[in-house]
Amino acid sequence: MSINVEFINPFLGSLLNVLSTMAQTDANHKPPMLKKTNIARGDVTGIIGMVGNKVKGSLSITFSEAAILDITCNMLGEKITSIDETVTDMVGEITNMVTGGAKRILADAGHDFNMATPTVIAGKNHEIHHHCQGKVIQIPFSSKKGDFFVEVSFEDVV
Amino acid sequence: MSINVEFINPFLGSLLNVLSTMAQTDANHKPPMLKKTNIARGDVTGIIGMVGNKVKGSLSITFSEAAILDITCNMLGEKITSIDETVTDMVGEITNMVTGGAKRILADAGHDFNMATPTVIAGKNHEIHHHCQGKVIQIPFSSKKGDFFVEVSFEDVV
Repeated sequence: MSINVEFINPFLGSLLNVLSTMAQTDANHKPPMLKKTNIARGDVTGIIGMVGNKVKGSLSITFSEAAILDITCNMLGEKITSIDETVTDMVGEITNMVTGGAKRILADAGHDFNMATPTVIAGKNHEIHHHCQGKVIQIPFSSKKGDFFVEVSFEDVV
Repeated sequence: MSINVEFINPFLGSLLNVLSTMAQTDANHKPPMLKKTNIARGDVTGIIGMVGNKVKGSLSITFSEAAILDITCNMLGEKITSIDETVTDMVGEITNMVTGGAKRILADAGHDFNMATPTVIAGKNHEIHHHCQGKVIQIPFSSKKGDFFVEVSFEDVV
């Protein structure tokens, strides 16, 4: 499977859908782009591995503190002021929901993969590197409160 | 598959093997333990997803800066003074090798899984949370230069 923007759109649509239905958050995004030197940085990141018969890869969603605190407040209806376990749990859950939504759309198009379990990293301004033979596609998002990035990378199973 | 120390030993042995053969680094470790409140923190972390027919999960290896700079120097035979792309590439490769070694041993014992691609996080003193229904098993390591942690978590595929 060649990884192109067509393949990335299900992830983009799934995230917008999760944010609008679960967190009443409208987000703008730039077009998906090839990640070259533009290293995603943020304060909390959800990561999940994906494994199919033909491809394997990883997805990350990296939030600034301001963005994820706003999203978590909207989802839970309570004020959250720092990245605590409630927030890291929420990021794990968002990572699952976004990837699960994209998985269903891609399966309908004949691209099957299974999902591993998410891991969540919290720490001020960390960087994310996908260690993958394939291209890394990055989608920069912004909401009223802050920025976040989705990155997806796949390589062929050999 | 119930996740117990017996299941974790292949990951432990595989890491010790990679370190001693590739980096001439002997490391001590404490016994594997259930992660409860003991949150792993470090400066660079390799994460990989694992997916089998019966289980799915994630592995993380989290290094202090001092530990990974020493290991990378030993592996490459050149002095490295900060966590740069050489180091994050090395952490991705170590994550692949350790998980690949454990995968072979576990497959021989009838526990099959496939590996996703690794993601590497760099950032001072970040925390790692495995978002998994199953228990998280943590193994604390120490080398002459610094500490590192392996964490493995699996849950049943439903």
